[in-house]
Amino acid sequence: MMKYAALLGAGVVGAGVAEMMQGNAAYLEKSVGEPVALKYILEPRDCSGQPWADKVVKDFSVIENDPEVSVVAECIGGVGVAYDFVRRALLAGKSAVTSNKQLIAEKGLELLSIAKEKGVFLLFEASVGGGIPLIRPLTNCLAANRIDAVAGIVNGTTNYILTQMIDCGQDFDAALKEAQRLGYAEADPSADVDGIDALRKICILADLCFGSNLPPEKVSAEGIRGVSLADVAFAEKLGYSVKLLACARRLEGERFTAFVAPMLVPRGNLLADVGGVMNAVVVTGNAVGDCLFYGAGAGRMPTASAVVADIIDAMRRGNGRKFIDWAPERPELWADPREVPFRWFVRYQNGCANAIVDQCLSDNGECAGITPPMTRGELEEKFNGTEILSAFRVKD
Amino acid sequence: MMKYAALLGAGVVGAGVAEMMQGNAAYLEKSVGEPVALKYILEPRDCSGQPWADKVVKDFSVIENDPEVSVVAECIGGVGVAYDFVRRALLAGKSAVTSNKQLIAEKGLELLSIAKEKGVFLLFEASVGGGIPLIRPLTNCLAANRIDAVAGIVNGTTNYILTQMIDCGQDFDAALKEAQRLGYAEADPSADVDGIDALRKICILADLCFGSNLPPEKVSAEGIRGVSLADVAFAEKLGYSVKLLACARRLEGERFTAFVAPMLVPRGNLLADVGGVMNAVVVTGNAVGDCLFYGAGAGRMPTASAVVADIIDAMRRGNGRKFIDWAPERPELWADPREVPFRWFVRYQNGCANAIVDQCLSDNGECAGITPPMTRGELEEKFNGTEILSAFRVKD
Repeated sequence: MMKYAALLGAGVVGAGVAEMMQGNAAYLEKSVGEPVALKYILEPRDCSGQPWADKVVKDFSVIENDPEVSVVAECIGGVGVAYDFVRRALLAGKSAVTSNKQLIAEKGLELLSIAKEKGVFLLFEASVGGGIPLIRPLTNCLAANRIDAVAGIVNGTTNYILTQMIDCGQDFDAALKEAQRLGYAEADPSADVDGIDALRKICILADLCFGSNLPPEKVSAEGIRGVSLADVAFAEKLGYSVKLLACARRLEGERFTAFVAPMLVPRGNLLADVGGVMNAVVVTGNAVGDCLFYGAGAGRMPTASAVVADIIDAMRRGNGRKFIDWAPERPELWADPREVPFRWFVRYQNGCANAIVDQCLSDNGECAGITPPMTRGELEEKFNGTEILSAFRVKD
Repeated sequence: MMKYAALLGAGVVGAGVAEMMQGNAAYLEKSVGEPVALKYILEPRDCSGQPWADKVVKDFSVIENDPEVSVVAECIGGVGVAYDFVRRALLAGKSAVTSNKQLIAEKGLELLSIAKEKGVFLLFEASVGGGIPLIRPLTNCLAANRIDAVAGIVNGTTNYILTQMIDCGQDFDAALKEAQRLGYAEADPSADVDGIDALRKICILADLCFGSNLPPEKVSAEGIRGVSLADVAFAEKLGYSVKLLACARRLEGERFTAFVAPMLVPRGNLLADVGGVMNAVVVTGNAVGDCLFYGAGAGRMPTASAVVADIIDAMRRGNGRKFIDWAPERPELWADPREVPFRWFVRYQNGCANAIVDQCLSDNGECAGITPPMTRGELEEKFNGTEILSAFRVKD
């Protein structure tokens, strides 16, 4: 019996999903065990001329009220109508899949609980790491592990900019322009370069790894506008690459912390070699140790491939148990990253701070080196009287 | 209601499984939705003094005939009793999980078909890449992709030996001794160094990626005994690392090829940086592009963590659809790797062959360089009259 999905939004990713569901129909049928088709595409814009123009509807209630539609794939973005439609789809007893990290980071707790109540699935493999299998390995294959840490490069735009700075000596502004020219960065790049996109993703990973909701407003994101060519050059000389990392880590007493910030990754660590727009995430389990997942973190077809895999999964699991959820926020388990000690890369005006910095280099009246582990507050105390030009954590 | 598993074999991995199922019982219960326990451990050796000694049985039929046991975890190895017991477990309507690559490579087709008939699962995440999530991402998350290639470092012992040769200038014999001293290589190292272990793993990956059975006897494995320090040194100067790769690749006309051989991996490719006993596999999908999975490919707890994850998965899926299988062999789709053109790294006695080799280097009366793409036969023809000392494919 034919199984039907509906698609919400036919933008970049949505059109990729539509294309892939037609082009790979034979693979889909083999995976699901029954033929699969898109029945509706909700898209307000004019779609005449598209091969799927005959499926376009303008009113979500057509989808909501059609019992033949068992899965709704949301590719609209944001938490406005996307939230409303996903919620209504779940309440109508349909599974939902989405690549929308803002939706899951902000509304995941509520939506997953509706899905559970209704006995349907809410799947979001594409929301972190684009096409890279990550959410499902984390929740299934590593299910026997206590996850102790997750750290990764989850934003391709900023990784492209930093790679250009490292490899080509372009400064931030020039590298950003280049990224915009190539379509890797948007006209307003702040969601990427200020770390907001990465922050949403690390919240989702923390929710899954530590089992209780981490509201995005709790996490601080430091973007890459403050990374200068001088930082990158000193870091390279010290044997490190500057990368924007999203990190979440279990601490003593079941507490955990999470943050997004530029960090120094030592050469030899695979994350240091992840260049251009690629993404990579290291998951540390208490039995398996470090596992790294690498691939295209964005882009039309990679993201569409993860959305379609979720559609397949929602369809073939039938009405079985829902596997993914997490508990409401437990504020007592949250540790502000400012309380957690790290080694620091510090660039500073020549001064009396050299005593606490290892591997000190100097150039043009500036110094840079690596400190022993300490909190941000301790760092500022120790540098009292010396101007800190940059301070970034070191990835151990 | 309590769910019960039985363990076959309490060797290195088996004891890790027993330990993990006791130590992580709370995690298991949360994942399965019901409490989970080991009911029996089949082990012929004396186990008194072990914390699980009270569960030991000597006769498989106790397990086979106990309807409370829903999953059997095979950690014996080989295709003797392991095959017999897994087969009987499936026929008795129990799911089976295993880390035994020989069993799946040689008997997977038959065992998966019994599992399907009986409506139970045969899961083998640990058989390739140890604790690294790989089989499930390949079969689930990338289900919407046509898999075009898979290539990886799937044997930690040989990767350790090659890393020692590259980083420390140890020759093969010295590096092998070191690996044996550290417990990374067995007293008889041939299954590892001759590529037999890697061959079994690439057969399993090819079965999954291309959908028809690839019998291990069809695939040729070239191990690393023929890799000399001269090869490694020339390769480094040319910008490559020598790695033992297991490869399977889709060719035109639905044909595919597979082989295990030392290959030159260009610096900058993440596989070149996978050092020591670590494993990494790159999967290329037609939508997602390259995804890399990296982690501990062997070892007690990493492997046990994958086995336990499979136990969880078999228990929580209940009696739903079986997802993994492949068709019988289709010999007409098989292409011998000798027919497939590759670029070659060639080390040879000074002679007249330089004209067909790029980036030619010479040292001590020997030359080395990289050829354009050609088959092995064409290579030998072109070098007619010049002695080839080594020839390894280049990973593109």
